[in-house]
Amino acid sequence: MILPIFLMFSFLLSSSSCNALDFCVADLKTPQGLAGYSCKKLELVTVDDFVFSGLHAGNTSNLIKAAVTPAFTAQFPGVNGLGISIARLDLAVGGVVPMHTHPDSSEIIVVIQGIIDAGFVSSANKVYFRTLKTGDIMVFPQGLLHFQINAGTTPALAYVSFSSPSPGVQILDFALFGNDLPSNIIEETTFLDDAQVKKLKGVLGGTG
Amino acid sequence: MILPIFLMFSFLLSSSSCNALDFCVADLKTPQGLAGYSCKKLELVTVDDFVFSGLHAGNTSNLIKAAVTPAFTAQFPGVNGLGISIARLDLAVGGVVPMHTHPDSSEIIVVIQGIIDAGFVSSANKVYFRTLKTGDIMVFPQGLLHFQINAGTTPALAYVSFSSPSPGVQILDFALFGNDLPSNIIEETTFLDDAQVKKLKGVLGGTG
Amino acid sequence: MILPIFLMFSFLLSSSSCNALDFCVADLKTPQGLAGYSCKKLELVTVDDFVFSGLHAGNTSNLIKAAVTPAFTAQFPGVNGLGISIARLDLAVGGVVPMHTHPDSSEIIVVIQGIIDAGFVSSANKVYFRTLKTGDIMVFPQGLLHFQINAGTTPALAYVSFSSPSPGVQILDFALFGNDLPSNIIEETTFLDDAQVKKLKGVLGGTG
Amino acid sequence: MILPIFLMFSFLLSSSSCNALDFCVADLKTPQGLAGYSCKKLELVTVDDFVFSGLHAGNTSNLIKAAVTPAFTAQFPGVNGLGISIARLDLAVGGVVPMHTHPDSSEIIVVIQGIIDAGFVSSANKVYFRTLKTGDIMVFPQGLLHFQINAGTTPALAYVSFSSPSPGVQILDFALFGNDLPSNIIEETTFLDDAQVKKLKGVLGGTG
Amino acid sequence: MILPIFLMFSFLLSSSSCNALDFCVADLKTPQGLAGYSCKKLELVTVDDFVFSGLHAGNTSNLIKAAVTPAFTAQFPGVNGLGISIARLDLAVGGVVPMHTHPDSSEIIVVIQGIIDAGFVSSANKVYFRTLKTGDIMVFPQGLLHFQINAGTTPALAYVSFSSPSPGVQILDFALFGNDLPSNIIEETTFLDDAQVKKLKGVLGGTG
Amino acid sequence: MILPIFLMFSFLLSSSSCNALDFCVADLKTPQGLAGYSCKKLELVTVDDFVFSGLHAGNTSNLIKAAVTPAFTAQFPGVNGLGISIARLDLAVGGVVPMHTHPDSSEIIVVIQGIIDAGFVSSANKVYFRTLKTGDIMVFPQGLLHFQINAGTTPALAYVSFSSPSPGVQILDFALFGNDLPSNIIEETTFLDDAQVKKLKGVLGGTG
Repeated sequence: MILPIFLMFSFLLSSSSCNALDFCVADLKTPQGLAGYSCKKLELVTVDDFVFSGLHAGNTSNLIKAAVTPAFTAQFPGVNGLGISIARLDLAVGGVVPMHTHPDSSEIIVVIQGIIDAGFVSSANKVYFRTLKTGDIMVFPQGLLHFQINAGTTPALAYVSFSSPSPGVQILDFALFGNDLPSNIIEETTFLDDAQVKKLKGVLGGTG
Repeated sequence: MILPIFLMFSFLLSSSSCNALDFCVADLKTPQGLAGYSCKKLELVTVDDFVFSGLHAGNTSNLIKAAVTPAFTAQFPGVNGLGISIARLDLAVGGVVPMHTHPDSSEIIVVIQGIIDAGFVSSANKVYFRTLKTGDIMVFPQGLLHFQINAGTTPALAYVSFSSPSPGVQILDFALFGNDLPSNIIEETTFLDDAQVKKLKGVLGGTG
Repeated sequence: MILPIFLMFSFLLSSSSCNALDFCVADLKTPQGLAGYSCKKLELVTVDDFVFSGLHAGNTSNLIKAAVTPAFTAQFPGVNGLGISIARLDLAVGGVVPMHTHPDSSEIIVVIQGIIDAGFVSSANKVYFRTLKTGDIMVFPQGLLHFQINAGTTPALAYVSFSSPSPGVQILDFALFGNDLPSNIIEETTFLDDAQVKKLKGVLGGTG
Repeated sequence: MILPIFLMFSFLLSSSSCNALDFCVADLKTPQGLAGYSCKKLELVTVDDFVFSGLHAGNTSNLIKAAVTPAFTAQFPGVNGLGISIARLDLAVGGVVPMHTHPDSSEIIVVIQGIIDAGFVSSANKVYFRTLKTGDIMVFPQGLLHFQINAGTTPALAYVSFSSPSPGVQILDFALFGNDLPSNIIEETTFLDDAQVKKLKGVLGGTG
Repeated sequence: MILPIFLMFSFLLSSSSCNALDFCVADLKTPQGLAGYSCKKLELVTVDDFVFSGLHAGNTSNLIKAAVTPAFTAQFPGVNGLGISIARLDLAVGGVVPMHTHPDSSEIIVVIQGIIDAGFVSSANKVYFRTLKTGDIMVFPQGLLHFQINAGTTPALAYVSFSSPSPGVQILDFALFGNDLPSNIIEETTFLDDAQVKKLKGVLGGTG
Repeated sequence: MILPIFLMFSFLLSSSSCNALDFCVADLKTPQGLAGYSCKKLELVTVDDFVFSGLHAGNTSNLIKAAVTPAFTAQFPGVNGLGISIARLDLAVGGVVPMHTHPDSSEIIVVIQGIIDAGFVSSANKVYFRTLKTGDIMVFPQGLLHFQINAGTTPALAYVSFSSPSPGVQILDFALFGNDLPSNIIEETTFLDDAQVKKLKGVLGGTG
């Protein structure tokens, strides 16, 4: 008695299973396309593609006393095409996530431990700035300059969710001082002093 | 006198023909991507890719007395990327399309023969339910549970259009009772009785 | 024992019911926006918004012996925002749907009765043309010139589905000869003869 | 010397500030449209629109021993249009989020405290099921049935992010047994026994 | 002191550089997909992919005294996926861009030299027609018939921007008279006279 | 003989004219929504909505010797919803468009007169920099820092097209130094010296 149902459903299911895109686990070996990676063959997909256990505490023994541990498509291929990803943010005392933008993604931070100063600047040039306590959330709209700073006396922990499975990040200081953009161009387009530019190029490894 | 036009237009046309995407007939042998399949080379595309004659009456000699015959990307590669597809629905007397969802697609049914009871449930938990006569149409919004039942004394025929070229389908009974989802998990998350779960697992081939 | 569940779920459900967009039945009295109409208040929505019984046989007693009866947002507000709509096409013997485009929508035709010649022209200037028999389907990609002709000796009936809830239509003859586009402009941009332009303007009501 | 810069930039900035959509804080008093709410006037927007402090521990003294506290557009209007939102999930010992779908949204869960069994079923009818420990994440693709269960001996806490600012939710038991969907229709479309249907209607308040 | 910053940032940057899609320069050797071409490997991308110097004056020594020189994805692979492209339009005295549509793209023209008559017809069959002087711009909405004519006594130059990186173009005369669409079909679907059709087929190379 | 055609077509056309969105000229008096403004009533739309003659030479008598004259939705309501807009850029000798981003739009520049140094920085921190001559074009991908500088000895003129009808712009110096973002926050998140920050706040009007 079971077979006839199977005959009917198996048609539906086989057609859907070979075609329909419930999800598209990234096959990271394929060339990347505009909409992400090609899909891993369905028979190779397992629950391991949808679970990630690698959001460990990051090492904050660095100058900015901060660490971001991502679960983006490269680390967590199950999110490919699903319009969402997440990362862990550790901020030691005094830790700072410097001024940066995500060119293609909005972000929500949820503070798990500690106190964090966070803010963004709109294209109408208004500052939206707030001290966040444990349990607070804040949203940073796509493409706008924003930052986070540990504002407390204990380490802070937060999770940051993104509206892209593979958000880009442009860190202002690195974009200006950590590459070969000529100093005179930086100065003409930012009005920063030559000494300031050269000092930060020295710290961040910039040339030219 | 013709050549100069050709010279001018051929530039336009060759550039458009090698690049512009009027359509993208699925090359079903390529890996599937987030937005569908890669495009068959234009010189291999023929009118056969855009016409489909396979929507024959389905075999309703099964337990649910129903058959769905799809013209999705897998059967009808011309719809790849065009945001639309269609299927034929045959319902023998007493036939039922069981409760199901399309995770990524809305649906319109048009009744060609017979009488069909159809309905869906919204996420605000309201039931939208109606008996459809020949010539009537009904729309089922994306992702919501819905069903169709032959409500008459003669076979029913309908066409169902989808807002996706390759709609997925999740049939509730199969999702719950036709795989290896452990019975205790089903019971905890649906409040169904153990006997009920085991009975339907027996019918639908579920294990665990 | 029921109340506690309600307390928990009612929060979920009330938040979803006031916000989540399972669907957005068009409130046709609001100004139209880029993405369609504003949504009718949920408490006013009934199953009548999702069912339409008005796809009656059209009157084909006209010069082109054809009638298109739409179930677009204006007639069938439940499709607003769902990316799909449908229309009924009646073609008397000799009936023709003249050359036209849908600037924002792809289309699938399913032939219910009769025989229909149908075709479209790609931007690479290739013709995709076929005689469709009862039960056949054909897809016409967005924005391309296409047509349908009754190719048989009996009336033809078809349903046409669209990938837009409110597809526009630009009928070539009306666009050229049924408005006040100056004849000399038509002639310069189409290479048609002046006599031809004036003759068709006479038939279709064009001026200038 | 400052004014000339202002003259130049003020043009840019005033044009952008009155038009460009960095963000669109929901004006919850306007009618909802397909793409969300209309935007609050920019001069009324403050940082309070982008920060939310209401994700308090939910009350789990209910039958399912679970509580979901949302920060969706209705509670947190700053996310309107940004493609992302978040909620807090509290699961007491034995707590369960019953089988449900989000018709328009994918979800990522991050476990903050405790142990959670979570899973989803694909439209190819495969079960993806895993026990998540503190710090683990799991993604649930859009529109598919999924669930979460406290699998430990202590309360569990998690945050769930969504790829929609206002995700809908369809809880299976409520959709089947918590409204006026006639029992015979439920039985025909789910193959559940009449006694089972009536028992759950009794618990969940269904009629018909 | 620099290394620790590098350690922290390099993680962010390497993850973003291998995944995030700031841009996706077309690898024109890959099969084209629905959303464009696959991305050239980042290490092979240079500034040459984002700069194009080939918009030279076109040769207008042809019947329509016009030339369109495109910078679409095929010529300018840096625009792949960015939703924008541009072309140069040269119109000699008496030059005409014949009636045409872009099935998937809107267009803005900016007149650099000379005077141009331009217009489009809406699907509500209204003509929007204007003489453009140097410095004027006009927008042509997606999918609608439009045209441009040199209305002055000197050569005209314009740039036309498109809302697609690879806009298709369907030139009306070519679609009707420059392929193998049978003359009787053209006549039935356009109401043009047989003599007119055959004359233009002769000029434009049509058969059938 | 004309009426019957009208009867048939008028149905099609009236339904399309009241619903179909060929275009949606912004009614700037309505509240702005996520997808732009509501549509001006069709009977009020004229060709003036689609033509703009206001791209005059800007006044470059300011500190940066530059002027941007936009034709965005606010100035040119016909582009609302069409995914494209344009602006005129005048750069006097020594003129500079300072480092900035467009959070939601890609940009193509076409140089009409003069020589322009232009560049952008990717999120992988690579600089794409080039001197553009008259007739050259360059594309700047969405959300990335970029700039333009008159690199010649004569005034430069360019047109810049955007993939948004209403692109936002975030000018780095204004975002950092032209508002009330506290100096210590700027310094912690950019590593700039206090003296540098205060100097630029003085020039650009910043407080705090």
